[in-house]
Amino acid sequence: MHIGVIGLGRMGGNIARRLMDHGHACVVYDVDGGAVDRLAGEGASGVHELADLVAALPAPRAVWVMLPEGKITGDAVAALGEALSPDDVVIDGGNSYYKDDIKRAAALKEKGIHYVDAGTSGGVWGRERGYCLMIGGDDEAVNRLDPIFKALAPGRGDIDRTPNREGRDPRVEEGYIHCGPAGAGHFVKMVHNGIEYGLMQAYAEGFEILRQKASAALPEDRRFTIDVADVAEVWRRGSVVSSWLLDLTASALASDPKLDGFEGRVADSGEGRWTIEAAIEEAVPVDVLATALFARFRSRQEHSFADRLLSAMRFQFGGHVEAPAGIGETPKAKT
Amino acid sequence: MHIGVIGLGRMGGNIARRLMDHGHACVVYDVDGGAVDRLAGEGASGVHELADLVAALPAPRAVWVMLPEGKITGDAVAALGEALSPDDVVIDGGNSYYKDDIKRAAALKEKGIHYVDAGTSGGVWGRERGYCLMIGGDDEAVNRLDPIFKALAPGRGDIDRTPNREGRDPRVEEGYIHCGPAGAGHFVKMVHNGIEYGLMQAYAEGFEILRQKASAALPEDRRFTIDVADVAEVWRRGSVVSSWLLDLTASALASDPKLDGFEGRVADSGEGRWTIEAAIEEAVPVDVLATALFARFRSRQEHSFADRLLSAMRFQFGGHVEAPAGIGETPKAKT
Amino acid sequence: MHIGVIGLGRMGGNIARRLMDHGHACVVYDVDGGAVDRLAGEGASGVHELADLVAALPAPRAVWVMLPEGKITGDAVAALGEALSPDDVVIDGGNSYYKDDIKRAAALKEKGIHYVDAGTSGGVWGRERGYCLMIGGDDEAVNRLDPIFKALAPGRGDIDRTPNREGRDPRVEEGYIHCGPAGAGHFVKMVHNGIEYGLMQAYAEGFEILRQKASAALPEDRRFTIDVADVAEVWRRGSVVSSWLLDLTASALASDPKLDGFEGRVADSGEGRWTIEAAIEEAVPVDVLATALFARFRSRQEHSFADRLLSAMRFQFGGHVEAPAGIGETPKAKT
Amino acid sequence: MHIGVIGLGRMGGNIARRLMDHGHACVVYDVDGGAVDRLAGEGASGVHELADLVAALPAPRAVWVMLPEGKITGDAVAALGEALSPDDVVIDGGNSYYKDDIKRAAALKEKGIHYVDAGTSGGVWGRERGYCLMIGGDDEAVNRLDPIFKALAPGRGDIDRTPNREGRDPRVEEGYIHCGPAGAGHFVKMVHNGIEYGLMQAYAEGFEILRQKASAALPEDRRFTIDVADVAEVWRRGSVVSSWLLDLTASALASDPKLDGFEGRVADSGEGRWTIEAAIEEAVPVDVLATALFARFRSRQEHSFADRLLSAMRFQFGGHVEAPAGIGETPKAKT
Repeated sequence: MHIGVIGLGRMGGNIARRLMDHGHACVVYDVDGGAVDRLAGEGASGVHELADLVAALPAPRAVWVMLPEGKITGDAVAALGEALSPDDVVIDGGNSYYKDDIKRAAALKEKGIHYVDAGTSGGVWGRERGYCLMIGGDDEAVNRLDPIFKALAPGRGDIDRTPNREGRDPRVEEGYIHCGPAGAGHFVKMVHNGIEYGLMQAYAEGFEILRQKASAALPEDRRFTIDVADVAEVWRRGSVVSSWLLDLTASALASDPKLDGFEGRVADSGEGRWTIEAAIEEAVPVDVLATALFARFRSRQEHSFADRLLSAMRFQFGGHVEAPAGIGETPKAKT
Repeated sequence: MHIGVIGLGRMGGNIARRLMDHGHACVVYDVDGGAVDRLAGEGASGVHELADLVAALPAPRAVWVMLPEGKITGDAVAALGEALSPDDVVIDGGNSYYKDDIKRAAALKEKGIHYVDAGTSGGVWGRERGYCLMIGGDDEAVNRLDPIFKALAPGRGDIDRTPNREGRDPRVEEGYIHCGPAGAGHFVKMVHNGIEYGLMQAYAEGFEILRQKASAALPEDRRFTIDVADVAEVWRRGSVVSSWLLDLTASALASDPKLDGFEGRVADSGEGRWTIEAAIEEAVPVDVLATALFARFRSRQEHSFADRLLSAMRFQFGGHVEAPAGIGETPKAKT
Repeated sequence: MHIGVIGLGRMGGNIARRLMDHGHACVVYDVDGGAVDRLAGEGASGVHELADLVAALPAPRAVWVMLPEGKITGDAVAALGEALSPDDVVIDGGNSYYKDDIKRAAALKEKGIHYVDAGTSGGVWGRERGYCLMIGGDDEAVNRLDPIFKALAPGRGDIDRTPNREGRDPRVEEGYIHCGPAGAGHFVKMVHNGIEYGLMQAYAEGFEILRQKASAALPEDRRFTIDVADVAEVWRRGSVVSSWLLDLTASALASDPKLDGFEGRVADSGEGRWTIEAAIEEAVPVDVLATALFARFRSRQEHSFADRLLSAMRFQFGGHVEAPAGIGETPKAKT
Repeated sequence: MHIGVIGLGRMGGNIARRLMDHGHACVVYDVDGGAVDRLAGEGASGVHELADLVAALPAPRAVWVMLPEGKITGDAVAALGEALSPDDVVIDGGNSYYKDDIKRAAALKEKGIHYVDAGTSGGVWGRERGYCLMIGGDDEAVNRLDPIFKALAPGRGDIDRTPNREGRDPRVEEGYIHCGPAGAGHFVKMVHNGIEYGLMQAYAEGFEILRQKASAALPEDRRFTIDVADVAEVWRRGSVVSSWLLDLTASALASDPKLDGFEGRVADSGEGRWTIEAAIEEAVPVDVLATALFARFRSRQEHSFADRLLSAMRFQFGGHVEAPAGIGETPKAKT
């Protein structure tokens, strides 16, 4: 198939490459002309104006937008709405807010243009491993794009088949899923990332317990010095907690066991926040997912006003002065 | 009554003073001879050896121990077990672990000595306002000490009477309660402090939200600049969140609105930890109380290993670099 | 002053009464004509059409809207926007979402009408105790309404003065505060309610620990049977956790110690949710406030899909069958 | 090697079988004679008295204990301490509390007997996939047992090698790790299970959000009906949240998409509790791991006293009646 790709960053560039690896013809565009030229050097058809991208594609056109979510994606979709023709398809492969998808799909529908949201997981490994795709949109557009999704998805590979899936949608085992109408794809991707935050935080807390077991704040006869890099590695084999995130953890710890290369200011990218918002709309208790998000907020703060207020109250009622510096003491360890 | 008081720190000294204010005769002892002499100058009978304290008290003796919990209190109780006679009473007014009380009471009982644990709340304000007392021990000892507890407790004061208390223990309205056998007093005091952590954290988080509403990280048209000292003050009057902790918060904020006098390293004193442990023994979900404890742990850390591990995972799967410094950004604010 | 009051439910009716008690003249309106007539019988001027309310008030008019938040309040404000004249004031005393206030204020401003949001705390006790008022709006309108706010607020009463408040806004000590422009009042009220959820949950968890200490699931020698109604009462006196919510708890437990009159399905009214949303916008970690909200969600569920999924996973990896009914066992209590 | 196996339940029986598959000679014992006979029928040497087991093994002996943790394991280890000879080894492969290991190792050491704790993960799948082993004990005993551990562990298999592990302990890549002295193995296994709780809860919350997106409590235009079984399956391929627990989830949902076979009362087996206790000793904030444990406690409760107390407070201050039955409503959804 022919497809346009707008946005040639870490994700978009590799998506174009994987599509070309699978025989699709990509017309690529980015505000950074250098990125366009690099892809052109790898076989893409590079353009430097949006109008040229539209002109270079056969109708009905398909254009994959892979841009930072929010205003930038919104503007690009709106511009495509002006430039494209009825029956063309815009695919938003970024991390858009699903409520934005619903609005954008409705706006394009008035012009007869299809809108497909394709939540894309796989990170920098996707070109090689394939991308897990969570897709929302109308059947016609999603079906038409099937060769594109199939090329991007990992495929069955040698993963053990799940029993009792007879009669279910076979695309799912290829690594892509049509979740529902516009917005449903990004909704599922959003929850995926919400879960991801929770999983990451569970590992982080567990490894912290292992590491702090050697802390000088514990009485000497209660310490163990545990090699956390080796623990991460051994858990990859046969344990209940094995996962791809653990594979990555083992890799990170093998090369930098104390993680000195990181400061510990953890960004959050939107989906974690929206996941909590969605849970609140549904009245679903999400203690783990929320707390994982808050841990990231806290990681970016120095001592907060809230912390100082606690100290101020303690001083007020008990004349207590603040704890000295040092990773948590154990003031009242039991024997 | 005559009573011995061991431990003349911030709490013990004021307890002796309040008892003397109410006409009781105190024999006081501390390892710090200066503290003994100061109390002696205020009317107490000061002694510089434990044996002298025992000798100075008429039988059956009562000795109030007000020392740091753990080994120090344990040693003092054991020494009293050697020095006292059958039918004497040891009162532990400190913040002991209730399981220690149970052991100590059993050990003293073998010698015919009573053990009473008196959880004591009121902080530095207690001399003036009175202390809320949560008492464990056998009826005989607790009843015998009634004049002591009555003197220390706040009394009815002008607090509105709770309806439907007819037929209930009248001591409770005086501000002291006999909770059960040895250990029960400190158990109730422990839960009291566990709740206290939760209350404090709820206020701290709320005031942080108010304060951060002025943050430059928010779009300008979404900011409010709210005077948190005035908010604390106004909530003291007629609102659902009024409390003594709020009174103290208003006081702290009136004198230091930015709380620059505090760093935000918040100590925890044992009861918060034991509360979680007790809840786990009982299989009671205590999300708020646990999370309030963990917020204190976190307040004493710099960027943790756990935080760095999150950053390392994000780098591994997505090539993400860490967030820049600055109290939490709002990367994907919705419109 | 003359003032219109729209909405004569539990809150609105008492607000009108308290205003009349303080000598203000109220023109009252409600869709329930009976409520109008009752207030008329207590001295209000009752009307049965919005137009009559407007006609009955001298210009510049002030109309207090006390209706359920959302569409109902929005419609009422819009209708007033049509019916009122430049320089009149609409006061929204309900629990509106502060972002709605900002929109409504802007819409009314185009017509020269002032909009004031007055977050009102005090519940069914407010008529007698007064209401704590958190006010947003422009200075002119807020100042003009000062006699109204002063009448509704509790006043200084005999509450201890907070030191170091010299030079600060004296209205605050009367029990009302001008927080900022339109929306700021409801923003502060929203956070007030968010804190309220946290405080309530802290008490609830603590009392559950006390009560479950008698659970048959604990070994017999580790149980205490604690009178939770008496504990609530004693904590009202001199303890660090004393508060108005505790006063109410003591009252509830004195009349119904097992709380058999309640099922335990806890509603949430919007502000708790918006508080978390606001915190997420500001990147403030609010573990306690969020978890208190989630506990309410959970209280309204039977066994959830999430719970069943945990059981399903445990069965899958370990062949584990589900736990039998009964409040949490203690499978591996330590000795 | 020759090895004794005590305890032939779900785990112990398969451990004996896997050892025999790898050519080791097992002498097996259980209080259930039928279990002994079954294993004997599969090639083991079955005994019906502990003394016979000891007699049947060549010195220095090795005995693997696979029993429920607590008193049962403690009694078995003590009995072995009586029956074995210096230089023999007891291996505790169960889920013992690591502080018990430390005590048991010290007691056996006085008799010259080695004690090795081998935390064993893999569940009912272990016979086929191998067990991930986390081992504590002295070097001599651990090294002597190497063929046993190697047989039980999964081995390298075809899992991608982690880069930068040159020079590290090669046993780790085989799936077993010597963590430190006695107790260290079970400490690591305990944290492993603590993490497991967190991971499971993250998935459970996420799938609940997906499923409730179809809830009739949401306005119709905000609902999606998402096939959660297909979502679990697609996430197994290329996504960041792929894991073995997700494989199992996909399997459970494919065969029972509504999980009607489960009630949702989720047991907890001790390690989750001890993990929190260990974190508290180390002053490590573990919000996710604790909250995952509490979710299990809550899953086993009907409406709790805590919930009723919240309702009682709301009634007291606001005259609020309880929420009606039904999975959480969304009272104040924003537009």
